[in-house]
Amino acid sequence: MAVGLGALPAFFPVAGIRLGVVSAGIKKTGRKDLVLIEAAPGSRVAGIFTRNQFCAAPVMVTREHLARSPARYLLINTGNANAGTGERGLADARACCEAVADGAGVEASEVLPFSTGVIGEPLPLERILSALPSALTALDENGWADAAEGIMTTDTLPKGVTRQVKLGDETITISGISKGAGMIRPNMATMLGFITTDACIEPRLLQSLASELGEASFNRITIDGDTSTNDACMLIATGQANRLEITRESPFLAGLKEALREVYLTLAHAIVRDGEGATKFVTIDVRAAKSQEEALEVAYTLAHSPLVKTALYACDPNWGRILAAVGRAQVANLDINALTIHLNDVCLVARGGRADSYREEQGQAAMNQEEITITVDLKRGDIGERVWTCDFSHDYVTINAEYRT
Amino acid sequence: MAVGLGALPAFFPVAGIRLGVVSAGIKKTGRKDLVLIEAAPGSRVAGIFTRNQFCAAPVMVTREHLARSPARYLLINTGNANAGTGERGLADARACCEAVADGAGVEASEVLPFSTGVIGEPLPLERILSALPSALTALDENGWADAAEGIMTTDTLPKGVTRQVKLGDETITISGISKGAGMIRPNMATMLGFITTDACIEPRLLQSLASELGEASFNRITIDGDTSTNDACMLIATGQANRLEITRESPFLAGLKEALREVYLTLAHAIVRDGEGATKFVTIDVRAAKSQEEALEVAYTLAHSPLVKTALYACDPNWGRILAAVGRAQVANLDINALTIHLNDVCLVARGGRADSYREEQGQAAMNQEEITITVDLKRGDIGERVWTCDFSHDYVTINAEYRT
Repeated sequence: MAVGLGALPAFFPVAGIRLGVVSAGIKKTGRKDLVLIEAAPGSRVAGIFTRNQFCAAPVMVTREHLARSPARYLLINTGNANAGTGERGLADARACCEAVADGAGVEASEVLPFSTGVIGEPLPLERILSALPSALTALDENGWADAAEGIMTTDTLPKGVTRQVKLGDETITISGISKGAGMIRPNMATMLGFITTDACIEPRLLQSLASELGEASFNRITIDGDTSTNDACMLIATGQANRLEITRESPFLAGLKEALREVYLTLAHAIVRDGEGATKFVTIDVRAAKSQEEALEVAYTLAHSPLVKTALYACDPNWGRILAAVGRAQVANLDINALTIHLNDVCLVARGGRADSYREEQGQAAMNQEEITITVDLKRGDIGERVWTCDFSHDYVTINAEYRT
Repeated sequence: MAVGLGALPAFFPVAGIRLGVVSAGIKKTGRKDLVLIEAAPGSRVAGIFTRNQFCAAPVMVTREHLARSPARYLLINTGNANAGTGERGLADARACCEAVADGAGVEASEVLPFSTGVIGEPLPLERILSALPSALTALDENGWADAAEGIMTTDTLPKGVTRQVKLGDETITISGISKGAGMIRPNMATMLGFITTDACIEPRLLQSLASELGEASFNRITIDGDTSTNDACMLIATGQANRLEITRESPFLAGLKEALREVYLTLAHAIVRDGEGATKFVTIDVRAAKSQEEALEVAYTLAHSPLVKTALYACDPNWGRILAAVGRAQVANLDINALTIHLNDVCLVARGGRADSYREEQGQAAMNQEEITITVDLKRGDIGERVWTCDFSHDYVTINAEYRT
């Protein structure tokens, strides 16, 4: 049951982007499981990837290809992560790229592979190769909704955002899709995001936007603290909407960045809203830290605490668990008497204990909301950070434990 | 349902130790909730405490008193943690010590207070003070079983160990009790351990044993990664069994240490075996690391991974989740192709993926056991570390979320 997540929007096509979606039979259910994204010549592509040291074969190949030449095709399969598959996995990922390259008349290094699904099983290469011609034939600028569905694993809803924004006289379009928070037998969560725009963005600026916006959105969400081997979030700019290249000096950069930021955040939040078993969408807002590092340490300690997450599930304004989690964060010399903790607008903790003004009914009313913000004001510096998470419910255990029964 | 945890043993009394256990009415159920441990004059006491920065009032007072004078009395209440209670909490903890001191004819600084239970509620001081005379009257060298029960919160079973060991011509006795892995509305887990012996141990050696043995046992167990505000583990040596003081040079030190180590480990493991909702007792054995720090980082990343813990609950030999958790541990330049992962005696992972020799039936057979060892051999150094944990079940969520329903 996704928290506050609606149906897909009617996507604006992005000039220069076409999407082909087919069923390759990787998943037994006959669901769409293979997505090909085509970017017109001249497009620029940037991305960020999992920090898991044991990253999957497609992540290694994508990184290698991105470094070598501008990308023209992104091939995404679900149903198999091609992770923990050693040399054979690398060879399979390369074979996919070569097949796309042959069919489309480009170099293999212009194709980027992405996989999500079962770990440790060989990629069903033959099925993917057989389905590729249909995916190429299916390429269509209106393929967005199918693609949002085609990259899902056990997501309960497809996730997409589409925006148009005026930069001076020109209108640019941003459309993107994401998937995540699902697991599949016998497997792990993987997160993928693909954001495209027809704006023309200078290449180094594009990578810096992909890094900065990805860091503040996809790298600030957590369901259970487990980092997938396959995470990737790509930003593609086709340059077909505006002739003038947007650079760091451009007067339109601020407007573009703001629009992209909103798309990134919405797609990242959608993953949390559809988090496994989620019944609450939770913002952890840490303020007045001395450094980004300590703000994130406090935020993630809260976001990963099973005691805090089960209290959220139970709608229990259990400030003792929140305070104890802050206290075990690895931050030296925290002053318990200075900090304050709020649940939405309700002050729970001040001067080392329950705030004098606090009444249980207020905390209960705040906890009964579906969207909750826990604000920890450390009162020791001027750095703030936010992360987003969900609660920890019976359904989380059911989804991750009971698929064998 | 505790994993492999039997009934209490018939405790050997420890010369110089008496225990008084009463119902002070802190818990509404009329259960035993106040335990007084008396150590004869000349006893030596050492301990280790929670690293949570927001430690409870009794932990602060115990530390302060330990630094000032040798302890004669330990007062433990359940039902209220006296944590998050500010100045009043400190005053209440001191008042308890003064009352014991008055009743027993010692100084207040010779009394150490311990509390476990509800956080953020004022300590019911009057009830404790009223019950203290009965606790003093009840002091008895055979009070161990009552004390093991009296320090329980939501533990499903009391936990205790008793041993006798020959050191040269003399027999010394070690008896200890612990509690933990329970929560109580609206609260957090707390861990307490009290180990006593009639051996005569040189004071600085005693503290060093308390630190070293506590580190390798109570500080190597984890149920859910949340550090309580109230954890403490005390080691008391009355010196009544052997005249000769055991020092660092003593030929009997090795035998004493081995016996104490076994008692510490058994009591610490008992907490994991009775972990909330636990159905498995899991040893995480990390070998051939470059440093203790990286061995522990890998071990705790596995022990805290919700995906690994739900797979254990489901008896699912999901090596992909284990491999991915190792890969996200904060250890630089791990070589996925070098390391191996075993489940009991079964090799799951070698050369970056599923071991060639691995058969699913073997993994399944290992997973079906109640006691499981996951061994990660990093193949990069000569340091090893072990931690102990349990699985993550529906009952964990139920215990921590649903007490309101």
